[in-house]
Formats: sequence, C-alpha cells, structure tokens
Amino acid sequence: MDAGRAVAPGGHEGQEAEEILARARTSVDPELRRAVEALPTPIRRVALYHFGWEHADGTPAVGDAGKAVRPALVLAAARALGGRTEDAVRAAAAVELTHNFTLLHDDVMDRDTTRRHRPTAWTVFGNADAILVGDALHAQAQRLLAEDPHPAAPAAVARLAQCVVELCAGQSTDVALEGRDPGEVSLDETLTMAEAKTGALLGCACAIGGLFAGADEEEVAALDAFGRAAGLAFQLIDDVIGIWGDPARTGKPAGADLAVRKKSLPVVAALASGGPAAAELAALYGPPGQEEEGAAELEAIALAVERAGGRDWAQAQAAYEMARALHELARAVPVPERAGGLLSLAEFVTRRGY
Amino acid sequence: MDAGRAVAPGGHEGQEAEEILARARTSVDPELRRAVEALPTPIRRVALYHFGWEHADGTPAVGDAGKAVRPALVLAAARALGGRTEDAVRAAAAVELTHNFTLLHDDVMDRDTTRRHRPTAWTVFGNADAILVGDALHAQAQRLLAEDPHPAAPAAVARLAQCVVELCAGQSTDVALEGRDPGEVSLDETLTMAEAKTGALLGCACAIGGLFAGADEEEVAALDAFGRAAGLAFQLIDDVIGIWGDPARTGKPAGADLAVRKKSLPVVAALASGGPAAAELAALYGPPGQEEEGAAELEAIALAVERAGGRDWAQAQAAYEMARALHELARAVPVPERAGGLLSLAEFVTRRGY
Repeated sequence: MDAGRAVAPGGHEGQEAEEILARARTSVDPELRRAVEALPTPIRRVALYHFGWEHADGTPAVGDAGKAVRPALVLAAARALGGRTEDAVRAAAAVELTHNFTLLHDDVMDRDTTRRHRPTAWTVFGNADAILVGDALHAQAQRLLAEDPHPAAPAAVARLAQCVVELCAGQSTDVALEGRDPGEVSLDETLTMAEAKTGALLGCACAIGGLFAGADEEEVAALDAFGRAAGLAFQLIDDVIGIWGDPARTGKPAGADLAVRKKSLPVVAALASGGPAAAELAALYGPPGQEEEGAAELEAIALAVERAGGRDWAQAQAAYEMARALHELARAVPVPERAGGLLSLAEFVTRRGY
Repeated sequence: MDAGRAVAPGGHEGQEAEEILARARTSVDPELRRAVEALPTPIRRVALYHFGWEHADGTPAVGDAGKAVRPALVLAAARALGGRTEDAVRAAAAVELTHNFTLLHDDVMDRDTTRRHRPTAWTVFGNADAILVGDALHAQAQRLLAEDPHPAAPAAVARLAQCVVELCAGQSTDVALEGRDPGEVSLDETLTMAEAKTGALLGCACAIGGLFAGADEEEVAALDAFGRAAGLAFQLIDDVIGIWGDPARTGKPAGADLAVRKKSLPVVAALASGGPAAAELAALYGPPGQEEEGAAELEAIALAVERAGGRDWAQAQAAYEMARALHELARAVPVPERAGGLLSLAEFVTRRGY
C-alpha cells in the first residue's frame, strides 16, 4: 500500500492531513529511531537502511521513512477519544515498526526491488538479513508496547498480534491468488484478502489509539471498523488508479497493473459479472506473452474491464466503504469536532493513494 | 539445535529427563494445538504440517512436534522457584511457538530440506508461506502471553521479544560467517553467535518460568544465565559430536560438518590457536573441491583440528559452561531438592544433543 500512487493536488483537507502527518512524524520519529538504534549491530544497519536513515554503506541519509499514516491514525484516534497523544506515542511507534516488518517480508516474497524510491533491503543485504530484520522489528514492536506502563498496553499487544496473524493470512492468500487462473478467483476472497492486507492494520492502529485513550470495547470496535472500511476504500481507489490513472500523476506507466495481469478488485469484479463482456475480458486476461504489450493492447483490456462493469463497481464500492467508515466514526466519536483528525486522514488516504 | 544428534543410551538422569519432557508435552500440547488451530486457514495448514500433526495433503499425522525442551524448561523453572506449573503452561506454549517460528525462518534462510525427519515447510509450501507461517506463530506466541491474566505476563512478553531480537542477531551473524574466510572468523564472535542462537532462548525459557513463579529479578537473571550456559555447553558438545561422533550413533555420515566446512566452535578455536598445527588446518579448510571427499581426507581434517587443540578446547569449554550453569542454578534455586528438574534437563541436552 505504501507503494501506492501519487497524487492529485491537495485541497483544504489534503493540507490538514499533511499537517497531521507531519506532526505525527515529529512525535513518533524519536521513539521509532530509538527502537531501531537499540537493535544489535548486524540487524541495526539493515533497519537503518530500510527506514532511509542510512545509505547501504552506513553513511547517514536524509530519510524517507514513509508517510506515517498508521502512527498518525493511532495518535488521532487517541485524541478523538479524549486521550493525550503523548500517552500513545510508543504505541504509535510500535504500529509503525510492525508495518515496516511486513513491508520487509512482503518485498522478499513479492521480489519487489523498489521501496520508497530506493532498492529494497533484500536486494542490498540478501534475503536472510531482510527476513531477520523484519523479525527483529516485529519483536521490537511488541517489546515497546509490552514495556509501556500504560494500563492498555497488554490489550494492545494482543490486538496487534492478532492483526499480524490476519496480515499474514491476507498476504498468503494474495500469493496464492497470483498463481491461480483469473476465472477461479472469487470476488469474496479478493475482498477478504484486501481487507486483511490493507484494512486490518489501519483498523488496528485506530483501535490501539482508542485503547490508549481508555475507550470502551464498543468504541474500540467502531474505531477498528472505521479504519478497515477506510483501508478498503483506499484499496479500491488505488486499484482504479492502477488501471485508469494518469501516468503523469501516478508516476507509473499506464495500465501497469494490467500488464502484469494483477488480480485487482475491478478486474475480479468484472470477471465475476458474467455475460459477454466478462467473457471477452477473460479471453484477454490470460498470461501475457513474451513480447511487451503495446499501449493499444493494454487500453483494450482496460476497456474490457470497464465494459464488464469493473470500474463502476469499484467506484461504487469505494463510496460505500467510505460511507461505512463515516458511520463507524460517528459511532466511535460522538463529538463531531473531535473526529476531524481521523476524518482528514481517511480522506487523505482514499483521495490520494499513498 | 533440534537438528542435533542422537543419542547415547540414557542413564538414570536421562530417564528422568525423558519423563519430564513427556510430562511437559502432555501439559503444553493442548495449549499449543489450540493456538495453531486458531490460525486462519491458509496459515493453519502449513503450521499443522510443520508441527507434524498433518501430512502435506491435510490428512492427520502422528505428530513429531519436537522434544519440547524449551517448554519443559519453563515448567521446571516455575516449579523450581515454588510456582505451580499449571500457571506457566501458556507461557511454555508461547516459548515453543517462538522456537518453531525461528525454525521455519531458519530453514528458509539456510535452505535446509529436512526437519524432524520430514521435508521442511518451505520445500512443500514455498518460501512465502513458510515465512508467513513463521510470522504468524511469532505473533500468536505474543498474543498467548499478552492474553494471559498472570501478573508476570507483560514482563514475559518483553523478555521474549528481547530474546527474539538476539536470536535474529545470532542468525544474521551465522549467515555472515558462512560467507567469510575461516581465517577471518574470530572465536569471540563465534561464541557470541552460538550463545545468541542456542543459549538465548533456553535462558529465556528458564527466566520466563521464574517470572511466572514470582521470582525476583536476581533469581530470574540467574535462571537466564543457567539456561544460556547449558545452551552453550550443548552447542560445544554438539559440535564435537559433529566432527568425532560415531556415525552409527549420530545417524549422520562421519565428518559431515567438516565436509561442508562448517565454522563450528572446535574448528574456529583450532584455527585461532596459532602455530604450525593451525596453519596446517587452515590449508586444509579452504572451500571443498567439486569431487566428494573420501573418508581419509575428512579424517585428516579432523586430525588437524584435534592437533591444533580444537577438540580439547571444546571439551574443556563445555565443562566450564556446565560448571557455570550449575553455579547459576544454585544461585537461582537455593533449595537443592527443587533444582532437580532443571538439572536433569540441562544434563539431558548436554549429554545427548537433541
């Protein structure tokens, strides 16, 4: 999801979200950095590289540690429920460490070579160190939470651990779907996978923020549901942009997702729609040939997805998920003035991709 | 370490240890099994296979989930400090889940194809699922501990997480040493690596048992030191057996560790000893040629390690570590009658390998 697309020029909400994210980074970075610096030498240098704080040769770098959407959600949820953000800073760092552990492992599994405009850790340090640094960040996240004297810490550890199990299941399903025939992939399992991969940790971040503000069970559940729905809305929009996005804005070639025959949500929905348009798409969506496809061929596939209803479905579904997110937010945070931060962040991730 | 060697016929202590291990398996297995069964489908089937409870096709198998040395240490430590073993059963399962997470990941990194007499998970289900199931077991271990209402649970979560960081550092160093020239590997870093890879989790298991019995900080530290020293003693003896062990007893060809030029502790100590015998060994210990070496060549290398003092050093060092373990045990458990279980287990692992 961090590999997502850039970026329409931001309106007012976009600017507010940017400010919230910048403040979150300022609060959380020192805690995050301390947790990484505390790792033993062979692990630390790979982690410092991954976060963009060091070059591969160990010299300092001007970091790009990511947008910090998840720690910002933790802090915004804590504030929304009347807590103090400073009480939730460690928890926010733990969530960000967990996110980065999953990025490191996903990059190994997916053989992705670029992350935040730099070569991925496994391409620089090898598979073993990338796996081990992921494991160490995972452990360090729990340690940070477990050593937090806040009374919500044990519940947060359990919740974060449960979320990681779901992330793993989502990634496992994703890998399995990659290898399957597009016609044999159901929309239900693709949605479940997207929720597990993208929604679960956003929901967990909000829930943990609530826990650290002393929220009750129902509020925490609503915060989790809010984050999940916003995550799904994001994924649907990111998938639409991956097919019909303007390359000048996305920074990726047009139809990149189609070229690799990605089983994205609009494609799976289109294939599942039945009828002649779906059959036409199925015929086009076999494995790509040896030669690179031209723009015309990719445009024909995009048109087939659209004709089979994939684009409309995805946009309607994204709107539905966003409405669900707002509903859950109102349930979690009955005082509208307090919900502003979470709302800005949700609009930010769904409008822009990130 | 579970790949270690079998087994001299057991004496009285051996029999006692076998009984302790069998009792630990009986107590911990239901908790362990419950934690695995609770995983989502795509993850669960790989985990059930790894623990030997299912065949690759999902049919039930008569499991070999390992000897359960670590959970037995947790329970024995809890008893030794006056606690009730039933209070520490979940913690023992969490330690065993953690151990199995590291086995799954180590097998991927080391490209090991056999574990507990069966094909390793990555050879059956692929790298991605083996990594993900390791991650999920890691998370499930913390969840189990974090949801334990026992007052020692948060401290145990933090301690286990810190131990995982050390295990990762040890494995990272091990992988790095594999690629280095034998002459450039120091005895100090090899010992640190062995302590991190083998000693840390045995120490942590004992420490967590102590925590769940309400032991004070000093007792917990002594229990940790006891487990670490016993772990190092085990590793030294396992390395000696790996070179000079009787193939009829170890089930491995003679000199198997030498054939792959393993930088085991006796070899590194021999190379570091200086003098003509070390130089002779260094000349023999370059990368093996294309053709398989005969028994005579491997015997010549074994003799060179012995001449350069590697065997004597390892045996003396193992005795020293075992003495240190006993000293720490006396510090942790001043009532000798209560220390019997831990003592039997330590003797079991160091005498037999496992």
